[in-house]
Amino acid sequence: MNRQDLTLLTDLYELTMMQGYYAKGQHEKVIFDVFFRQNPCKNGYSVCAGLEQVIQYIKNLNFTYEDVDYLRGLGIFSEDFLQYLSGFHFSGDIYAIPEGTVVFPKEPLLKVIAPIMEAQLVETAILNIINHQSLIATKTSRIVFAASGDGIMEFGLRRAQGPDAGLYGARAAIIGGCVGTSNVLAGRLFDVPVMGTHAHSWIMSFPDEYTAFKTYAQMYPDNCTLLVDTYDTLKSGVPNAIRVFQEFRDSGRTFKKYGIRLDSGDLAYLSKEARKMLDAAGFLDASICASNDLDEYLLHDLKMQGAAIDSWGVGTNLITSKDNPSFGGVYKLAAIQNKEGTFVPKIKISENTEKITNPGNKTIFRIYDKTTGKVKADLISFADETFDTNEDMLLFDPIETWKKTKLTGGSYTMREILVPVFKNGECIYKSPSVTEIADYCRQEKKTLWDETKRLFYPHQVYVDLSPKLYEVKKALLNQMSITE
Amino acid sequence: MNRQDLTLLTDLYELTMMQGYYAKGQHEKVIFDVFFRQNPCKNGYSVCAGLEQVIQYIKNLNFTYEDVDYLRGLGIFSEDFLQYLSGFHFSGDIYAIPEGTVVFPKEPLLKVIAPIMEAQLVETAILNIINHQSLIATKTSRIVFAASGDGIMEFGLRRAQGPDAGLYGARAAIIGGCVGTSNVLAGRLFDVPVMGTHAHSWIMSFPDEYTAFKTYAQMYPDNCTLLVDTYDTLKSGVPNAIRVFQEFRDSGRTFKKYGIRLDSGDLAYLSKEARKMLDAAGFLDASICASNDLDEYLLHDLKMQGAAIDSWGVGTNLITSKDNPSFGGVYKLAAIQNKEGTFVPKIKISENTEKITNPGNKTIFRIYDKTTGKVKADLISFADETFDTNEDMLLFDPIETWKKTKLTGGSYTMREILVPVFKNGECIYKSPSVTEIADYCRQEKKTLWDETKRLFYPHQVYVDLSPKLYEVKKALLNQMSITE
Repeated sequence: MNRQDLTLLTDLYELTMMQGYYAKGQHEKVIFDVFFRQNPCKNGYSVCAGLEQVIQYIKNLNFTYEDVDYLRGLGIFSEDFLQYLSGFHFSGDIYAIPEGTVVFPKEPLLKVIAPIMEAQLVETAILNIINHQSLIATKTSRIVFAASGDGIMEFGLRRAQGPDAGLYGARAAIIGGCVGTSNVLAGRLFDVPVMGTHAHSWIMSFPDEYTAFKTYAQMYPDNCTLLVDTYDTLKSGVPNAIRVFQEFRDSGRTFKKYGIRLDSGDLAYLSKEARKMLDAAGFLDASICASNDLDEYLLHDLKMQGAAIDSWGVGTNLITSKDNPSFGGVYKLAAIQNKEGTFVPKIKISENTEKITNPGNKTIFRIYDKTTGKVKADLISFADETFDTNEDMLLFDPIETWKKTKLTGGSYTMREILVPVFKNGECIYKSPSVTEIADYCRQEKKTLWDETKRLFYPHQVYVDLSPKLYEVKKALLNQMSITE
Repeated sequence: MNRQDLTLLTDLYELTMMQGYYAKGQHEKVIFDVFFRQNPCKNGYSVCAGLEQVIQYIKNLNFTYEDVDYLRGLGIFSEDFLQYLSGFHFSGDIYAIPEGTVVFPKEPLLKVIAPIMEAQLVETAILNIINHQSLIATKTSRIVFAASGDGIMEFGLRRAQGPDAGLYGARAAIIGGCVGTSNVLAGRLFDVPVMGTHAHSWIMSFPDEYTAFKTYAQMYPDNCTLLVDTYDTLKSGVPNAIRVFQEFRDSGRTFKKYGIRLDSGDLAYLSKEARKMLDAAGFLDASICASNDLDEYLLHDLKMQGAAIDSWGVGTNLITSKDNPSFGGVYKLAAIQNKEGTFVPKIKISENTEKITNPGNKTIFRIYDKTTGKVKADLISFADETFDTNEDMLLFDPIETWKKTKLTGGSYTMREILVPVFKNGECIYKSPSVTEIADYCRQEKKTLWDETKRLFYPHQVYVDLSPKLYEVKKALLNQMSITE
C-alpha cells in the first residue's frame, strides 16, 4: 500500500528560509521543540500520539525529480539550492515522548536537533501529524472516562476531515481508549478491532423490519446487534428484535453476542424502556448500544440518569474533537550551535508571559510518588542534568516562584520520558503496535490522580523547571529587556 | 505520486450489509442521495466541493489480494462473498452538483444509482470526502466575504487534522476564494498559488532583526514581506523594516511586492500605527499582512475598526472550520428498483419533520430571476419532470405549504444543477481545474442576494418540491402512519 509522498507537505516559507540559510552558508545545528500551551477541551492532561507517522515521514523525506521541477517552476529558487534539495535527506537527531504517554502543557513532546535547513523543513508536517493524533487521542480519553468502563466504539469516518483524518483519527482513538473502530482500513493497517452491524438502509431494503432483523440474525449469530429505530423504537423495533431473539432461542440456537442499537430519540428513556422489555422476555444478557451525536458531556449525563446502555458508538464529536478541533502544538527554536559546537540557548519573548519559550537543550523527568505510583510533577531540565532521588528536591512554579513543594529524598522516583528516536538521521526506535500503545496509555492514565482526570475543572499537573534551566531563562529574559 | 488505496476506507457495516444482500441474491438497483440538513456556521448557503476526489475514489475501487485476505481473517465473510469482492468494480451511475456551486440544505449534492451492494460500499468514503471539502469551502467563503475584497491566504497546514485535511483543505480553501495557500504539496498537485515568506525562527537565527530583514530583502526582492513582531513590533520590527526598505530604495533597487506581516498583539492598533510609520517614510505601497488566530468574526471587527491591513493569513479557524468542524452530509436511500425495473420511492420517517427524507429519483432545478440573474429558489423534482419557463410557476414551502410564491411565466429561468458524472461505471465527466472551479464559485456567489451572504442571520434560500414530488411524499407518509 503506497503512501503519498509527503516531502512537499510543508509551508512555502520553510523552503524560502531554507534557501536563505543555504545561500548564507548557515549549516549550524539548531534545536527545535514541539510543545503545546493548553490541554484541549480544558482537560487535565493530554495523550501524545502520531510519532510512528512522524517516523515514516522523516524516513521517506526525499525530493523527487517532479518535486524539484515544480519548485523550479515557482521561479524563486536557485539551481544551486534545487540541487541541494535533490540530494536532501534528514541527518539529524530526534527525541520524543512515546505515543500514549500522558503529557502536559509546555513540555517538549518532540525535540529536533539538526542542521537548521533540515530542522526547518520538517516543522510543518511534524506539527500536522502530532497535533492531529494527540488531539483525537486526548478527546477520546475524555469520552472513555465519561463512559466509566463501558466500551466506546469509534464510528466517525464519514464526518472526519478527509480520509487521513478518518484513518489516523481511528488510530488515535484506539490509543485513547476506544475498543474498536468502524473504519476497515484502520483495522487492516493498524491491526485493531473493527466493529459495526447494519444501517437503516438495511431495514428499509426489506419489506418489513422483522424480515430484515431475522435475515441479519441468521447471517451473523456471532454478533447480532439490531438497529431498532428505523420506524418506531418501542412499538416496532424492540418488539421485532425480541421476536427474532425468541425464535432463535426457540429453535435451540444461541448468539455469541447480541442486542440492540438505539440511534435516535431520548437515549436515557428509550434504553430504560427497552431494557425492561428485553429483561421481561428473558434476554438479560442482550446488550444495548447507543449512538447519535454523543460526546463526553452527553454520555456523562446519560450515565447520571441511569441510561441502560452498555456500549457506545461515537462519531462526529470524537473524530473531529468538535468543541476543540485543534491541538495547538507549536515548533519553537530553543538553541543554536555556535562555532565551538556548543548549543547557545535561545528564547522567544512575548508580552504574554505564558508564551515565553524555554531555552536550551532540554529533557523531561516525570516524578512519581513512590508509595502511590501517581504523578507528582514533571521537571524540565537541561538534557545533561542528573538528579539523585535519595536527595530532597525543591520544586517551584516557574512563574509564581514563591509556590514551592519539597519532595523528601527516597519518597519519589523519576523517569526520563523523552527518548531517542533518530540518531544522525537513522531511526533507532521501534514503535510498539497500536494495541500495545493503547495498553500503555491505559497504564499511563492510572498514574494520574482522579482529580486530574475529571471532565470539569480538573486539577492541573505541575510542570516545573530545574533551578539551572530557570536561571538561564531568567538571564536571557533580562538580557532581552536591556536590548529592547 | 501514488495515492493510498482507499477501497477499505469504509465502515465495517457496509461490508456486513453487502454480504447480507449478496447471500440473499439482492442485486436490484437502488438510489441513494447525499444531502445535508443545515449550512455550517449558520451561513446562508454552502459551497459543494470534493467531487474530483470522489471520482478518483470510484475509479480506483478495487479490493486487492491483501484487502481480501485481511477481510477473510476477520472470520465473518464467506469465501463466495470474498470472491465477489475480488472482482468488484463500480458499475452504477452517479449524478452530482459540480464543485464550486452554491448549494442549500436538503437538496441532493450527489445521487448514486447502482446495485444495492455497490451503492452501500461507497457511502462512507463519499460522505467523508464531500463533507470535508464542502465544509472548508463554505467556511472559507465566509472568511473571504468578511475580508470584503482583501486577499485571504490559507496558512493552516500545521493545525489541519492530518495530511489530507491540510492538502484537500487547501484545495477547498482555494475553491472557496483564498488567493493562495502556504501548502506546497497543494500547490504542486492542484496548480494553485503558494505563498509565504519567513517565520520568527528566521529572525532568531540571525544576530539581530535588522540583519535578518536585510538578508531576506536581498534574497527575495520580488516578494519581501517582513515579519515584524519577533521582538517589539513598533519599537523594533517596523523601524528595522523601514530601514531595510530605505536602504533598498537608496541603492536604486525596487521590490516587486513588499511590506510587513503582523502576527501578534492588537492587529487594529498595530496596523494603524505601522501604516503611519510606513507612509511617513514614503512607503505608501508597502502592504500590511496580518495573521494570528483570525476568523470571519475577528476579521469583520478589525475591518469595522479601520485596521490598515490589506492581506490576511488565516490558519486554524479556516482549515478546521473551528466553530463548526463537520458538515453533516448524510446518505439516504431514496428508491429501490422493483422486478419490473421501476424505481419505487422510499422514505425514512422521523419524529422530527425536518429529518424526513425526500423519496424517489430526483433532480434539482435552480430558478433565477431573469432581470437580476439572482437565485429565486431551488426546485427538487422527479428526474423525469420537465418545466416550461413560459408558464407561471407556483412555489410552496414543503412544510408550511400555505407559504406560496408565484413566478410569472417569462420572468424566470431554470437550470438543472445535478449533472451526470458516471454512467454504467464509466466516468463521463471531466473536472475543471481548481482555478476554474474557484472562478466558477466566485460567479456562483454573485447569483446570491446580499441578504443571503451576510455573516449573521442570513436570509435562507427556498428549496421547494415539485407538486408531483410533494404528493408522492405525502402519500408515502400517510401509508407509513397507517402501517405503524
